[in-house]
Amino acid sequence: MEKVERQALSDFNELIAQIRPLDEGAMQAARDRQDALTKPRGSLGRLESLSVKVAGITGLPLPQIHHKVVTVMAGDHGVVSEGVSAYPQEVTPQMITNFLHGGAAINTLSRHVGARVIVVDMGTAIDLEPHPDLVIKKIAYGTGNIAKGPAMTHAQAIQSILSGAEVVKDEIERGLDILATGDMGIGNTTPSAAIAVALTKKPIVEVVGRGTGVDDTGLQRKISAVDRALEINDPKPDDGVDVLAKVGGFEIGGLAGAILMSASHRRPVVIDGFISTAAAMIAVVLVPQVRDYLIAAHTSQELGHHTMMEWLNIEPLFDLQMRLGEGTGAVLALPLVEAACKVLTEMNTFAEAGVSEKVET
Amino acid sequence: MEKVERQALSDFNELIAQIRPLDEGAMQAARDRQDALTKPRGSLGRLESLSVKVAGITGLPLPQIHHKVVTVMAGDHGVVSEGVSAYPQEVTPQMITNFLHGGAAINTLSRHVGARVIVVDMGTAIDLEPHPDLVIKKIAYGTGNIAKGPAMTHAQAIQSILSGAEVVKDEIERGLDILATGDMGIGNTTPSAAIAVALTKKPIVEVVGRGTGVDDTGLQRKISAVDRALEINDPKPDDGVDVLAKVGGFEIGGLAGAILMSASHRRPVVIDGFISTAAAMIAVVLVPQVRDYLIAAHTSQELGHHTMMEWLNIEPLFDLQMRLGEGTGAVLALPLVEAACKVLTEMNTFAEAGVSEKVET
Repeated sequence: MEKVERQALSDFNELIAQIRPLDEGAMQAARDRQDALTKPRGSLGRLESLSVKVAGITGLPLPQIHHKVVTVMAGDHGVVSEGVSAYPQEVTPQMITNFLHGGAAINTLSRHVGARVIVVDMGTAIDLEPHPDLVIKKIAYGTGNIAKGPAMTHAQAIQSILSGAEVVKDEIERGLDILATGDMGIGNTTPSAAIAVALTKKPIVEVVGRGTGVDDTGLQRKISAVDRALEINDPKPDDGVDVLAKVGGFEIGGLAGAILMSASHRRPVVIDGFISTAAAMIAVVLVPQVRDYLIAAHTSQELGHHTMMEWLNIEPLFDLQMRLGEGTGAVLALPLVEAACKVLTEMNTFAEAGVSEKVET
Repeated sequence: MEKVERQALSDFNELIAQIRPLDEGAMQAARDRQDALTKPRGSLGRLESLSVKVAGITGLPLPQIHHKVVTVMAGDHGVVSEGVSAYPQEVTPQMITNFLHGGAAINTLSRHVGARVIVVDMGTAIDLEPHPDLVIKKIAYGTGNIAKGPAMTHAQAIQSILSGAEVVKDEIERGLDILATGDMGIGNTTPSAAIAVALTKKPIVEVVGRGTGVDDTGLQRKISAVDRALEINDPKPDDGVDVLAKVGGFEIGGLAGAILMSASHRRPVVIDGFISTAAAMIAVVLVPQVRDYLIAAHTSQELGHHTMMEWLNIEPLFDLQMRLGEGTGAVLALPLVEAACKVLTEMNTFAEAGVSEKVET
């Protein structure tokens, strides 16, 4: 093994060793305060449980969210040559340009919720024009065609995770109280579906969906590509790096690393849709404890997303019938997480407000 | 009929005559633009349909939301003497004080989303201390006990609707682009359930829930109270004023009026939970066209809310297992409506961004 690979493995092992259980003391303090606030107990439903979770993640009984960051990680996919996408591969760099110019959905929604957008080239097929807001972490010029062989080498899989983690580490230094995950990459619902099938062991036809909108013929090509990818590569479901290397993508690896780094620094992670959830599944295979740091934003319209959420055993906050990716669902959930924390920290208790408590009948 | 009552009836008839159908032209322009924006068509799901709806409501192809207002209307209820609530009636004025001091959930959440809170005394049981942020529209010192007779007179029902409408008219003059409805009133899930049963004709036990949290005995008392209220008063389901007068409440009438006024000025109305939805049902009985101006924020945990939404035939945006009232669910939906409008107005089209469109296979 080369020196650089040994260093990478050492960094990787350090990253996954840093993730700790939630802080039970902070959670109990948050629960006690929720029960004393001027409202019937439990009447704010999931806002209450969310505030308790964020207390446990951060270790703070009164957590506050100021800096919100969405990392939009981009990559290209060799499997597009199988005709699995409704859009040509050139759309990946075109959309990155759109992100950098502020014209995409993720820009609009991030401005709306006050989140910083970080666009990362994890492995697009061409060299992108340098831009002050573009982070270059290119592992390679797109993955291999998973229908014919592995997406990437084991070393590249490790490197994609570490590179994604570095992005978040840098953002934590600039201020990051909560991470939202986003993606861009023509063809990336195909590797995400392959990851989902490899880990959930559900039938392929229950997981592979239409992505950006392929027709019936395209859907059959996608199903066939995922089928061959799993047959040829035989990913080991208990080895997250193996699954990522064989049927994943560079942006998926980057997002898995981003999630791990956020969790290791006790920052909550809001997961977007199909691709982000595949990345979260990889992260959870690597470190099961990571699951506790995840907040599922929404149920995507993409066919298999519900199955992936079941496997992760987390309940999404809402379902607005979205299926865009980019992190759009995740950033829409950020105001809900903030609202949960503000309820916990800002509301009066019964005693503070001089309001009578419930009468026993 | 007295002169003042004749004037009220004339004002009332004018109010309900002003509500127009949605603007089809603005909706089509919004749909066309959504289809040209840099995302797969339909991939933003309900955000897209919501933006089209707001275009139709406002008559603007590119609607913008700046001024957000939540009207928290308060009233007391004679039916509390039947033991239908887990909290004593004194909590109504205590919570109003809490609202005015900014310590309640609705204050926290409204600050979070940038909405103005208007607290209105529509008919609490005591005289409240004057406060610059408290609007006094008191119709009476609480309603009659609906388990024994009507909640109010026909004239009071008309007056409560007109008073609620006046509150919104004043806010429109100060700037109101969207209205969120909220309520406060110990015991008010009981009249709301009675309205719901009167209009949906569903079995009482499928509609009456635990409100702020009554135990099994309290729930039986509530069911019995609603049963007797409907038996004794026999409200006419095709007459919204009759239903309101016989089994309603002053804050419910106020909210119905607020909804009517907002719709008559082409402002979207975001409906909160059980009580607000009862008010919306009254408004829809009065003017069926009002339904098109309503945006249902969330499904409340209160038992019958789902049934009420079915009757209204509107799909709530989310379900966070909330059941607090005050307008808390409605204000949480405001950022989603804003997000929908911003997507429509701020995103680039494919042509503007130079992004390739979908390929036909």
